[in-house]
Amino acid sequence: MNPSPLRVAAVLFPGFEVLDLFGPIELMSLPPDGFSIITVAEREGPVESAQGPRVAAERAFFHSTDYDLVLVPGGRGTRTEVDNPVLLEWLRQAERPARFVASVCTGSALLARAGLLDGRRATSNKIAFDWVARQGPAVHWERRARWVEDGKFFTSSGVSAGMDMALGLIERILGRPATEDAARRAEYGWNDDPEDDPFAVKG
Amino acid sequence: MNPSPLRVAAVLFPGFEVLDLFGPIELMSLPPDGFSIITVAEREGPVESAQGPRVAAERAFFHSTDYDLVLVPGGRGTRTEVDNPVLLEWLRQAERPARFVASVCTGSALLARAGLLDGRRATSNKIAFDWVARQGPAVHWERRARWVEDGKFFTSSGVSAGMDMALGLIERILGRPATEDAARRAEYGWNDDPEDDPFAVKG
Repeated sequence: MNPSPLRVAAVLFPGFEVLDLFGPIELMSLPPDGFSIITVAEREGPVESAQGPRVAAERAFFHSTDYDLVLVPGGRGTRTEVDNPVLLEWLRQAERPARFVASVCTGSALLARAGLLDGRRATSNKIAFDWVARQGPAVHWERRARWVEDGKFFTSSGVSAGMDMALGLIERILGRPATEDAARRAEYGWNDDPEDDPFAVKG
Repeated sequence: MNPSPLRVAAVLFPGFEVLDLFGPIELMSLPPDGFSIITVAEREGPVESAQGPRVAAERAFFHSTDYDLVLVPGGRGTRTEVDNPVLLEWLRQAERPARFVASVCTGSALLARAGLLDGRRATSNKIAFDWVARQGPAVHWERRARWVEDGKFFTSSGVSAGMDMALGLIERILGRPATEDAARRAEYGWNDDPEDDPFAVKG
């Protein structure tokens, strides 16, 4: 089905949220030969997460902008990264060759500030929604969504929603059986309906 | 409720499973002042996960055996770590002062080989269950369980089940409201019944 693994650039920055990144990475690791994960950041070396543990960036941004899939986590670090021209310019460059660009939680604020979501539908987490929406006034923000697909862009709502979105992405690339197999191996109860958002604000 | 954060030793070894570790770490990071995470391993420095990304161990095992909670992930690395006397001896030493010892997925194979689960009820993931059970013939292995609590020991079934277990642990320590708040902030649909195991083998 998939001749060679898709090369995934997993973006790190200080204060990224661990589950935003490692939920999708876990699920992408399960289909045999499906995805290969490369951690990227402004500089090579350890990057401190919002939860404390440090994760090594394998490659600096300047090393390459050529990946099949760009995965952008959220976390409190997005509050400063929305003003980081190096990160935003790398996102703009990496978007062009990428088959898919995905964000989890407030990661969509970074895509929005890079201008990549203008005119597109997208979502983000509940607690920071208004702040995220202000980062992209030309984005069609959807408040009620587990995740949103618009062309090659996949954006999810808060933290755990990234896992449901990642399975949606795996399904688009590898098909339904491979995706159900990945969920089963992770013993993960997939919410496979992007519109089923149990955490949306009532009213 | 909780005068100072519980010090969590998050155990790393080559080939650990990322979601086994970062699912619980994410949820433990959400209650204010609830937990502080310290990554520990045989040696300080980067440790390669089963999924590729490397995570830095903050402290070597010999630095301390005094933590409030020991968190042991699974992953294919457990296949060799069950024969690692340094890791097993550290687990035996760290168990004594710990208020809680928790494992995810095949992490219970390591607790079993250290002798810590003898005479206790425990579980593990589905795919490797028989191999794990052989690591502890004196353990009462439960094949159908999302997670198992026996005294201070919490063991979960495969990968994602670690998040449900982590919330069970948070509930034991901080109570129900703080736990529901953590799940809500992570937009995580908590399976809060340890006996509700949708992945148990039928029959």
